Order: sequence, then structure tokens, then C-alpha cells
Amino acid sequence: MSKKKKEVTLMDKIVSLSKRRGFVYPGSEIYGGLANSWDFGPLGVELLNNLKAAWWKKFVTERTDMVGVDAAILMNPETWVASGHVGSFSDPLMDCKKCKSRERADKLVEGWQFDNESEETPANWAAEKTPPQDMLDFINEKNITCPQCGKLDWTLPKAFNLMFKTQQGVVEGEGKDIYLRPETAQGIFVNFKNVQTTSRKKVPFGIAQIGKAFRNEITPGNFVFRTREFEQMEIEYFCKPGTDKEHHEYWKNFVMDWYKGLNVTPENLRLRDHDPDELSHYSNGTADVEYLYPFGWGELSGIASRTDFDLKQHMEHSSKDLQYFDEANKEKYIPFVIEPSLGVQRSALVFLCDAYDEEEVKEGDTRVVLRLHNQLAPIKVAVLPLSKKLSEGAEKVFTLLVRELGLKIDFDVQGSIGKRYRRHDEAGTPYCVTFDFDSLEDDTVTIRERDTMDQQRMKIDELVAYFREQFKY
Amino acid sequence: MSKKKKEVTLMDKIVSLSKRRGFVYPGSEIYGGLANSWDFGPLGVELLNNLKAAWWKKFVTERTDMVGVDAAILMNPETWVASGHVGSFSDPLMDCKKCKSRERADKLVEGWQFDNESEETPANWAAEKTPPQDMLDFINEKNITCPQCGKLDWTLPKAFNLMFKTQQGVVEGEGKDIYLRPETAQGIFVNFKNVQTTSRKKVPFGIAQIGKAFRNEITPGNFVFRTREFEQMEIEYFCKPGTDKEHHEYWKNFVMDWYKGLNVTPENLRLRDHDPDELSHYSNGTADVEYLYPFGWGELSGIASRTDFDLKQHMEHSSKDLQYFDEANKEKYIPFVIEPSLGVQRSALVFLCDAYDEEEVKEGDTRVVLRLHNQLAPIKVAVLPLSKKLSEGAEKVFTLLVRELGLKIDFDVQGSIGKRYRRHDEAGTPYCVTFDFDSLEDDTVTIRERDTMDQQRMKIDELVAYFREQFKY
Repeated sequence: MSKKKKEVTLMDKIVSLSKRRGFVYPGSEIYGGLANSWDFGPLGVELLNNLKAAWWKKFVTERTDMVGVDAAILMNPETWVASGHVGSFSDPLMDCKKCKSRERADKLVEGWQFDNESEETPANWAAEKTPPQDMLDFINEKNITCPQCGKLDWTLPKAFNLMFKTQQGVVEGEGKDIYLRPETAQGIFVNFKNVQTTSRKKVPFGIAQIGKAFRNEITPGNFVFRTREFEQMEIEYFCKPGTDKEHHEYWKNFVMDWYKGLNVTPENLRLRDHDPDELSHYSNGTADVEYLYPFGWGELSGIASRTDFDLKQHMEHSSKDLQYFDEANKEKYIPFVIEPSLGVQRSALVFLCDAYDEEEVKEGDTRVVLRLHNQLAPIKVAVLPLSKKLSEGAEKVFTLLVRELGLKIDFDVQGSIGKRYRRHDEAGTPYCVTFDFDSLEDDTVTIRERDTMDQQRMKIDELVAYFREQFKY
Repeated sequence: MSKKKKEVTLMDKIVSLSKRRGFVYPGSEIYGGLANSWDFGPLGVELLNNLKAAWWKKFVTERTDMVGVDAAILMNPETWVASGHVGSFSDPLMDCKKCKSRERADKLVEGWQFDNESEETPANWAAEKTPPQDMLDFINEKNITCPQCGKLDWTLPKAFNLMFKTQQGVVEGEGKDIYLRPETAQGIFVNFKNVQTTSRKKVPFGIAQIGKAFRNEITPGNFVFRTREFEQMEIEYFCKPGTDKEHHEYWKNFVMDWYKGLNVTPENLRLRDHDPDELSHYSNGTADVEYLYPFGWGELSGIASRTDFDLKQHMEHSSKDLQYFDEANKEKYIPFVIEPSLGVQRSALVFLCDAYDEEEVKEGDTRVVLRLHNQLAPIKVAVLPLSKKLSEGAEKVFTLLVRELGLKIDFDVQGSIGKRYRRHDEAGTPYCVTFDFDSLEDDTVTIRERDTMDQQRMKIDELVAYFREQFKY
């Protein structure tokens, strides 16, 4: 990843605007925070709700081959044995014997590769799955020293499981270890049979879920890009073996199109297929949608072809028959699975980065404007009485719009009209409706557009139809 | 709580219908479940989404005195010291020395009171906060034996903390204990200053949040009534000291009205003020909205007057000034707080129980029908081609409705029309639209209403306007 000075500054601006306008605050800030955790404020929660609704509409509601679920975060721990997470969901960590700092061995190797523009790797290189001794040999050979103290005195890398562990139950024997789910996917797989039977869906069909997952990452960071607690929007799409390649292609494009449809600049998006040595053991093909973040290209979402690995594992561990019976062809099989997986907070970050703009309005006067898609904008319309004396009439407009549109409308009386416009530019509010003294006479208001700053006069009783059209998604 | 035979049967029916139609499945069912955890299926997740949207609309969107947040589940652990949860959020548990079973001492006392229709209590009785020796003395004196083995040989009750504990971080020293939040409220309190400043709201105003919370309850049960993992819809409403009583009254009624507005039978709802000895130490008044569940009257939601307890605690523990400055009157104070708190899954249970009906259509023919409010119904409209030959025309109707309304519309071709109607009665679908051979000729369809079973013929191009009106909320 390239770390240009100018680009780091853009991230700083976004973090600062996020706090200033109430998109995102540091988590537990009054107590000094908690290791890169973040809380979403009044505008942030609306942005999250809007993007989740947009995803649900396009990936679930509008399709006849998709249904949703909402599975619990706490699952029977046998689930994570079957999925392989108990055995192998880990990072290779090594300690510096001098200063006791702990580092990810694979990341040290990748950092060395980047710094030296080299593609040389340890023997048997497979990123976090490289044999520990091969990793250590390479690190010593290349003199990759401790980033904290500069010494070269490492322990052998050791696998550290990334699942958060807790205990449930208070009765002796019941209080066994359970885990905070590290992914939402398994909540779908264990419910595959129940969902297929009760929804009467025929393969191919998909099951969608939005929910929190938790990973005890050693290196969270870059604002909300990587956090230990995060929300996923995931689909497991079940298809007949042999048709998986074609469905994989379909979903790669569908995910790309979804982001583009929400105004993400196409040049800032790319699809990258994993190299064979990057692939998870269960996957016969994975593509990442990548975005050009302020800190360089990075993962935005993944579309994995998971074969029948998960259902097979759960069949073995649960002794339940999870095969699908195709009535038309009278055949039984374990479906193959395509998994488009999107991060909620990471998507929010992309929408914020891509929407951020500084525009010189006139010489020496620059406005910050968030050019968010209408569907994503936290506040859809701000109703502004020109003077406090006009509050009563303006409130009627506010109430009309809220009731009829059911959308988030703001009522803002604080400061001059110019200041209020600028505040709503920063908040990404697409339209301001100004109620002035003429409004009392002729029942018209001024609509001011965020992006163009154009203004038009409109009858109050035409507003609902106008905005309903603007906010169609 | 009265446990009549007939009423327990109603609960069984609801659990069974929930699984059959895909509202709720046992969690991790293929692995034998996990202690009263539940997963919401295709209809269940739509019901949850609809009720959360209904709450957000009435409690947040439609109000100018309310903003939302979405705080992290994992918070700085100091939060729970300040809130009192580390010190005193616990149940008094005692072990039977004979059979090793573990029980809640306060619940044993309450069970004895109920069975004996007595109001006698241990000395210094304060439910779960009663001194252990007083609790044990009473239990021995009244011969309250072990419900498992029938013996009277108890250990002294011991406080058991109800928070789930885990460790974050992998570096020595960083891996200190953190907790899964036992309530969403504290995520609001720690953000009070950030939210108030960035949203520029003036007291009185509220902060709303929907999110998961976790309590290691010893006795979860009654389907989704009490689970260890659950979702809350909470508001902390900040007001000037001295006005708290009036706001408390307001919110008690507002919550009641919200449930009634979603068609919950008024006779099945009641407000119950806590007795002084039931009140939490921070509260100067709490009322529960109770519902007549199949197992008797029980808590549905709580509206607590929390005084300035929480903000004061956080001021002390964080050394941050969390006072509010009232510009108009030039005075500084710590706001008092009213907290209307609703459970998502518990509300879903109430909507299901209240909507469940069995109706004799004609002699010997009874239909099961879920009379859910239009806003809550998981599927709003089912489009049914009378014959498979009509699928193409019916699909156009489906697409029209999905695109224009943005609501969950089902396309259902399986089984006779009569069977499909009955299936959608059980699913709570308010309207079925049947596309028949006449539809090809005259562009009309039949609308069949769930509750009355009345049918009417309507032009296809009138459907969108008709349904938009029906699904206004």
C-alpha cells in the first residue's frame, strides 16, 4: 500500500468531519477509548441504516430467489469446530525477546517485501499459514528487526486464535467455552435445512443476513476500516455443483454494480481475483472488490466460491442430512455455495471517502460537501425557516414531509441561512427547503440543491411528489 | 403467574407455527441448540425489521427532539464500574448440597409466596438484594426444599455477576477483562456530550439506540421472552431536574400508545408502577408495561426515571464535565433522565401472541390466521398466478409492486389457491393478489383480504396507489 502524505491527510479530514458532524466518535471516548472501537453518532446511525436498507432492498426484497435470517451471535461451540475456526482461525504471532512487543510474523514479511520491492518469500509461503520455522528463518535471514526496539531476537511464531471466548451458564459443567461468532456465515449454514424447508425455495436460492461479528485482530486500524467488532451483510447462495463458476461471476458483478449504483466512482473500484496461494482451503475461487482508500487500494468486500465445504462439514459434525432434494430431476446433492460478503462499517467508510469533496465556491471561499447518494444521505431534507418568526409555517412543512415520506427530515433554526447551508453540505443533506416571508403569502418555498447549489421555487403541495421521486431507490 | 393448561397450549402453538412458517427456529438446532437461544427465519427477520422500523419512525424520525446513535457492544470496562454493573449486577445463587443443582434464592422465595398466597418475606427483603443470611434463614424456616431433589440443604446464597466476560487484545497487559454490554443504555450515556454538542440539541431531548445486549441469566425461558442474547430499543431522554415526573408520565403513555397503535389488544396491556422496594437504587420511579402472555402477566417494557445517577457516575469516574449548559437561562446542570426501554424479541413475541387466531371458516374447517398490523406483516402482499401458465403476467405485477412500494412482496406458485391463501393466513400476509385468466384480458386482479377473506376486483394500475395507502404508518 502506498502511503502518500496528501492521502493520509484526507483520512484525517474524514475522521475530523465524522466527529464534528456526528457521524463517528471514538468508542468509550470519555474513558480514553477502547483499542480502535468506534461509536456511530446521529448522522452515522442514519447512514448505516440507509446503507443496510439499500443492501436489503437490492439483495433480498427485489429478488424472488432470496430470503433473510437473523441468527444469534452466540452459537453452539460445535459450530466452530465444524467450520474449522477452533482449529485454524489464527494469526502467527511472535514476541521480541528484548522489548516483549508482539507482532504478526506474516505482516513483517509483507512489510519487508513492500519496502524492498521484492517478491521473495519464506519457504512454503502461504501468508498466515506458513510453517513457523520457515517464517522465522526468513525473518532472521533478511534481518527483519523489531519495529519497536530495532533488535533481531524473535521467538518462534505461534498461532493465536482470533475468536473472542466467553462462558455461558452458571451451573457447574454448563459453563463451557463459547465464542462470539467471527463471521455471520455459519448462522446461515446451520439453518440451511430449516430455511429451505419452511421457505419452500428451490436451488438456486440464497439466504441473506446482516449482523455483528467479532475478531480479536492484533492490528485493527485505519479508522473503521478494520475493527474488532464489525457488522457483515452476507449472502450464502446455494447452487447446483457445476454451476458455481457462473454464479460466482454473476455475484462479482452484482456487488460491483451495487456500489456503483450508490455513486462510488468506478475508477476507485476494482475486482481482484485471489492467487491460488491466497485462497482459503475451502474455496475454489475468491474475488475481492477493492477500493482506493486514502491509504491505498484495500479490500472492500469479498465474493468467495466456498464449494460444498461448509454444508459437508456440518453434515459430518452434526450427523444431520443437509442434502438438497431436487424434485424436478429426482436427485439429491449438497449444494455449492457462493458467498458475497460486505462489511457495513467498511462500506460506510467508502461512501464517506468517495463523497468527500472540497469545492472553491468563489475566491478564498471553499466549502466541504459530502456528495452522498440520495439513498444514503442521513438527512434527506432540511427545513429552514428564514427567521424564527417563521417557525410555525416551516414546522408544518416539516410535519408534512415526515408524515408523507417517512424519511429523516431535519428542522434547523440555528444560525444564518448561509451557515445552515454549509452545515448541511458537510452532513450530505441533498436538499434544503427554505421557508421565507413570501412563503406565508404564496405557499411556495425555495429548494436548494447540495451538489449544484441551484435554487428553485416550488409550491408546498408539490413537495411530496417531487421528493418521493428524488428518493426512489 | 397463573399457569393454566389452556394457555400453555397457546404458547406451544405459537412456537410450532413459528418454526413451521419460518419465524423462529431453535438456535444452532442441528447441534442440539444452545440453552434457549433462537434464530429468526425468513419471516421472523422481516417481522423484526418491521417492528424496529416502526419504533425508529415513531420514536426518532417523526420527532424534532430525538437523535439516534449506534455504539459498540464492547466498551471500555471502566464504563461498567461507573454504572455499577461490575459491583452489583448479580443474582443470588445457592447450591443444593445434596444434588448440586443451583437455584436463584429470590425466585425460590417468590415461588413460595405465590404457592402459599402469602406476602411474608425474609428480613430486610429487597428481592435479589436481600442479605444472604436473611434469605437462607427464611428458606430454612419455611422449609423451601430443592425443586430438583426435594431436600433442604442449601449453601449460603452468593452473588453471581450476570455480565459475559471476555478478553481483548493479544499483547501482554492489553488482554484485560472486558464485557459484552448488559444494556445499551451506557453506550448512550458515555456519548451524551459528543451527541449533544454535534447535534446541537437543546434539553429536553433524547438519544435513541437499537442494539444487542447480553445477560448470563440463570433462568432464560418461555420461548423468546427471556434469552441471554437480546436486542433493545432504548431511549435516554434528558430533561431539566424537576421536570422528570412530567416527562416520565409522557413516556409511559407514549410507549403504551405505540403498542396499541400496532393493534395489540388494549385489555392485554397494563401499566404497573414499581413498589418502592422494587426500585433500582438509581431510580425515583419506574413503570412496567405488562402484557398478558400465554403464561400470565409479565414484563414487556420498562419506563424508568433514572434521575442524574448515570451522568453523575460517569462524571466522577471519567473526570469529564458532562453537565449541560442552558444558554437561554445561563445555568449549568446535570440533566435528569427518563428511559423508555423496549425489547425487540419480546415485542415480536407479543405481536405474535396477540395476532394469533383460530377461526372456524365453516363447520369442521378452522383456519389459523395471524392478524398482524400491516406495518408488521413480514410479507405485505402475495402475488399468486392462478395457474403456472400465468406466471409471466403475474411476475410483472410482482415487479411493479416491489419497485414502486419497496416492500416485501411474495411470488407464490406452489399448491392450490386455497392452500396458498391458508399459508399466507398463517404467515400474516394481509393481502393476496390473484392473477387469473381474466387478468390477461382486462388487466384486473383479485385482492383477497386476510382478516375478512373478502375479495375485490381491481385494475392493475390502481394497485400501487391502493397499497401505498394501506401500508402507510
